[in-house]
Order: sequence, then C-alpha cells, then structure tokens
Amino acid sequence: MLAWTCPAPLRDGPRVVMGHGGGGALSAELLEQVVLPGLGEAGPGALTDAAAVELGGARLAFSTDSFVVRPLFFPGGSIGDLAVNGTVNDLAMSGARAAFLSCGMILEEGVEIDTVSRVAAALGEAARTAGVRVVTGDTKVVESGHGDGVYLTTSGIGLIPDGVDLRPERVVPGDVVIVSGSIGAHGVAILSERENLRFGVEIESDCAALGGLVRDMLAVTPDLHVLRDPTRGGLAASLNEIAAASGTGVVIREGAVPVPEPVANACAVLGLDPMYVANEGKLVAFVPREHADAVLAAMRAHPLGAEAAVVGEAVPEHPGMVVARTGLGGTRVVDLPLGEQLPRIC
Amino acid sequence: MLAWTCPAPLRDGPRVVMGHGGGGALSAELLEQVVLPGLGEAGPGALTDAAAVELGGARLAFSTDSFVVRPLFFPGGSIGDLAVNGTVNDLAMSGARAAFLSCGMILEEGVEIDTVSRVAAALGEAARTAGVRVVTGDTKVVESGHGDGVYLTTSGIGLIPDGVDLRPERVVPGDVVIVSGSIGAHGVAILSERENLRFGVEIESDCAALGGLVRDMLAVTPDLHVLRDPTRGGLAASLNEIAAASGTGVVIREGAVPVPEPVANACAVLGLDPMYVANEGKLVAFVPREHADAVLAAMRAHPLGAEAAVVGEAVPEHPGMVVARTGLGGTRVVDLPLGEQLPRIC
Repeated sequence: MLAWTCPAPLRDGPRVVMGHGGGGALSAELLEQVVLPGLGEAGPGALTDAAAVELGGARLAFSTDSFVVRPLFFPGGSIGDLAVNGTVNDLAMSGARAAFLSCGMILEEGVEIDTVSRVAAALGEAARTAGVRVVTGDTKVVESGHGDGVYLTTSGIGLIPDGVDLRPERVVPGDVVIVSGSIGAHGVAILSERENLRFGVEIESDCAALGGLVRDMLAVTPDLHVLRDPTRGGLAASLNEIAAASGTGVVIREGAVPVPEPVANACAVLGLDPMYVANEGKLVAFVPREHADAVLAAMRAHPLGAEAAVVGEAVPEHPGMVVARTGLGGTRVVDLPLGEQLPRIC
Repeated sequence: MLAWTCPAPLRDGPRVVMGHGGGGALSAELLEQVVLPGLGEAGPGALTDAAAVELGGARLAFSTDSFVVRPLFFPGGSIGDLAVNGTVNDLAMSGARAAFLSCGMILEEGVEIDTVSRVAAALGEAARTAGVRVVTGDTKVVESGHGDGVYLTTSGIGLIPDGVDLRPERVVPGDVVIVSGSIGAHGVAILSERENLRFGVEIESDCAALGGLVRDMLAVTPDLHVLRDPTRGGLAASLNEIAAASGTGVVIREGAVPVPEPVANACAVLGLDPMYVANEGKLVAFVPREHADAVLAAMRAHPLGAEAAVVGEAVPEHPGMVVARTGLGGTRVVDLPLGEQLPRIC
C-alpha cells in the first residue's frame, strides 16, 4: 500500500532513499511530485490502492502491490502469503471480493529452486484460503547480486457489490472508528526474525485475507464510509490518509487501541510506537454512528474480527489532523510518518 | 511473455539460472515443474500470458509482465514503453482491447529521482499512445545493490469482444501463418546499446502497442485462430508454443520472414539467429486460409502492419514441430530455444 492521497511538503533530493518506499510522507511525495506528473495523471487521488473501474457493464476493483520483504519466510507467513493477502485486502478495502490474481516474479540468479517452490506453494495455499485464483503470471531472472531471491508483484480484480461506495471523502464527523483487532504484530514479527531478537514468546505476523470479514460487515449495511488496511506506516498512516482526504479530524482513544502485551513489550524495547507498525491482517473502518453497534457485532462474530474495538471517531475539529487522547487525559498529534520505521516490511 | 504451454524435459538443477527467465524451454520447465505444482494449478496451460476470465457478466482478459531490461533507456524505447506495450500486447493477443493498467515499481535506493521521473513520463506517454490508463500502482524501495535502478511490473485488463476465441488449440492444418512485419530489431537494439556496438546505422527497438492492429484484423473476421507476440525467444519460441499446444506441424519459408538488412548484418556479426531474437511490436497470426488474403490486406493498411507477410502454414505432418524451408530447398528444424540468447531483454 501507498499513501496515495496524502499531501506532503517537497523533500525530494536528487536520489531515491529507503523512506520513499515506506508508505508515509516520502512515498506520497514521490507519487505526487514525480510519478503522477510523469504519468500525466491529475493531482492527488488520481491513483488509489484499488481503482474502481467500469468494464463491460461490470463495476470492478483493480489493485497491485509489489513485495520485497526480508526475510522471505517469517513467523506467521511468507512473501507468498503477503502477496496474496495484500492484494486481496486492497480489493476488500474497496468492498470488492477478490476473484482473480496475477503474479509477476523477479527471481535472482542462484536462488534455490526449492525456495521458489516454497514461495509458489505459499501463494497457492494463501489463494485457496482467500477463495481466489492465480490465473496469469510472468517470471524474470536478474543476475546474482541484483535482486534478493524473490520479488513478487501481485495484481487482482474483483467485483464491487451494488450500493457499496467506500471512499475517505464519504467520512463525516460523528463516524465511528473501528479496528478489527490488535495492531503491531506483523512489523514486530519481521523485525524479530530479521534481527534474531527474542522476546520470550514468538510473535507471529497477523497476515490474513480480510475478504470474508468485509463481506460480513457489508451484510450489516453497504453504507460503510471507508475501510483501510493499515500496512506500511501502520494505523497512524491510514488514519492520516483518511483525515487528509476527508477533511475531517480524527480523535483516537489511545487506551482503546488493542496492542498485544508481547508486541507492546517488544515495541518498548525497540523504541517503536505500535501506532506506526505495519499490520497485514487488520482493517480500520469509519462507520456511520447508527450502524456502528451492529457492524462491531458482525466483526466480532468473524474469526478475524474477534478483538474488534471502537477506538475513536471523526470530529469537526482540527480538519485533516489525527489526535490521540492519552490515558492521562492529555492529547498528542499522531503525525503521518515520514517513512516506514522498518524498511522492507512487505 | 513466458512459454507457459511448452512441454520440456527435466533440467532443473538446485538453483535458478539466467535461462529460467528467457522464455524458452527452461522457463517452461520452471513454470510447469516448480511454480504450477506449488500453486496447485493443474498441468501445462493452466496459466497463460493473458487469462480469459468471466466477472460480473463481462468476458475479460487479464495479464501481467515484469520488466527488468538493461539499460533502462535504449534506441527506440525504454522500460516504461516496454511495460505498457508488453501488457497491452499480451491482452491484444487474446483479442482484448486494453482498458486499464496497474504498475508496481521496485526502485533501488540511490537511483536518481530524475530517472524515476523519466520512466514515469515514458509510461504515461506510452499509455496515451495505446489508449489505456494507468489507474493503480505501488512503489517499493530496496537497498542499493539489491536492484537495478527500476524494475516494473504492469498488469492489464480489457474486454474480449464477442465471438473472439484466440487459442493455439484452434489451429488446424491449412492455417496461414502471417507475421506483422520484420523481426529482430528489439533484441539487436538492446544488445547494441548494452555492449556499445555500432553497425553503421542505429537499430531501434520496434517497441509498439498492437491493440489497433489487432482490432483491424478482427474487423475482417473474429475467427482468427491464434495470435502471439514473439518477445523473449523470438518467433521461434512463439511458433513452437503454438505447434506444441495445437498438435499441428508448422512449416516456415525462411526467405519469406522479413529481416531488415541492418538487423541481419548485426545478427551475422554477433552469431545470432533472427528467428530467436526478441521483438516488442510484432505479432504472428494463424489465420483460416479463406480469410488470409483479407486479413493480410487489413494488416498492410495499418502503420504497424505495413510489412506484414505470409511466412508459412500449419501442416498435418510432424505434429508439434516447427520446420523451416531454407532457400536452397533444404529444411531444418526450428527448435524451442533453451533460454533467451540475450538475458534481460525485457
């Protein structure tokens, strides 16, 4: 995912830095000041994580994501799981049920065939779990030292149901902010594996496909306002994107945001803020107040929403800004991160 | 493109080699013996360059390609042109008119912002020329030394017109084989630029979008049997794929295959066979004999088909095999290449 819609001041130096891939302000800047003008597409919001397009009378969502995660296999998942679930989730955030996926692989010369086989098996298993089929693909090979084993790019298409129109512009003050579960596990799992850190219990990525959860939410009402899966940049980036695009303020009750104790402990040791840590199987929803209780109940009835919680609301004050109420009655601004705290998290 | 459908003997060692990305027998082997079993998809032909899928009552083509060409800019085009035209052409080969593209970028830390900007501009210009829109995307960054400036993966969707059913299985003996123009320019252009070779005149890539040409061909008759764009592995790979999948033989009159003199000269110097050199703006069509003259005329009336020529036919003899009649009255077998003669040609 990329913060396609967030305005940011000019910071582009003459060269690409790691933060340009972090899903925060630097990513938004690269998109809006370099990529979009090059493409000739008009202004912020011209590209979205999942585009809604009309084709042959069908209303489709179309999405793509590249995956460069290190390591390829980690507790709770692999690059193959991320590639399927990331694209399925981008489609789900537009209300679409993913139907078909494509997969482009860039392999590095010298990578073990067995590794490619394990990645393909992970792709296949994740696709079956998500109820989607990989129907087309491509493979390229680059010389040893010009890749990292396996890079994947998945794209997906799915139908957007009638009456569903999920966009941050639809958010209004009074909307209730619900997260589908606890945050921070994916980023901490990757970092732990990469740096060989141990925190007593093994923390597993939350990587999962959210299509079924979204379908159950939309069965309560098609009139949800916006959904986002807080991947790179974490919940903070998603909330900032929504606040900026909707022009409303967002208030979060910090203590209401579920963070598992091992994740909280690991973040404390590592100096990370869970609000900025990537997730791969969570969503945040802005729901009209009158539907919030029913939507929350439907989420809690789904295995991937069992820990769903109301964490805040959209407000007329401080438009475009996200503020957290802390446990002590204070408030702090939750900024859009400049980049991702952990490079190559997905 | 990848030789998705070509059977090949087991050659997989324990590690990926450059030839696995070459679009020949090694690519087919990786696909059929490693990727497809991993995905759990059934056997050869389960994945195609462009999948035909039904969604919401619409008959769609869906395709993806990754691009790792070196250098990023070359005479006649760039990675941006390849990324748009390659995906547009894969869709066109299924008869579909490309409507929407996605683009995933994997950038290398340290690449100049100006390079990214030029790639984005090339993408935009190629998309406008092809009449397609880039509607969604993603950007990732990998550390310096783990990429090559810019890798792109484009996916595309388009509508398949009613009555169009382009598949190699539809080829029957008697079908006329037509190529849309002269072959070999792309591969020679890339190699010349990469190795700083000069052959008197600058040879430019033929990189172009073939959607309009295919539309004009289908206007003559929707009953074309199969189309292929001979990219990696050249015309030889495309003909072998079609022969293998259709179970017919293919006979080519070697002298009828148009090769520009500078390309022929360069190939002679470099020890390359033009039949195996990649193209990026050409197609080969298997056309029912009764429609061949009219289709050829329609192709020649299009700027990208001005040099179209009948080069051979499908025959009942030597099923699955491609044979070339040489100028001296002899014949030679045109094998499926093991890999691409030139790595990272697209």
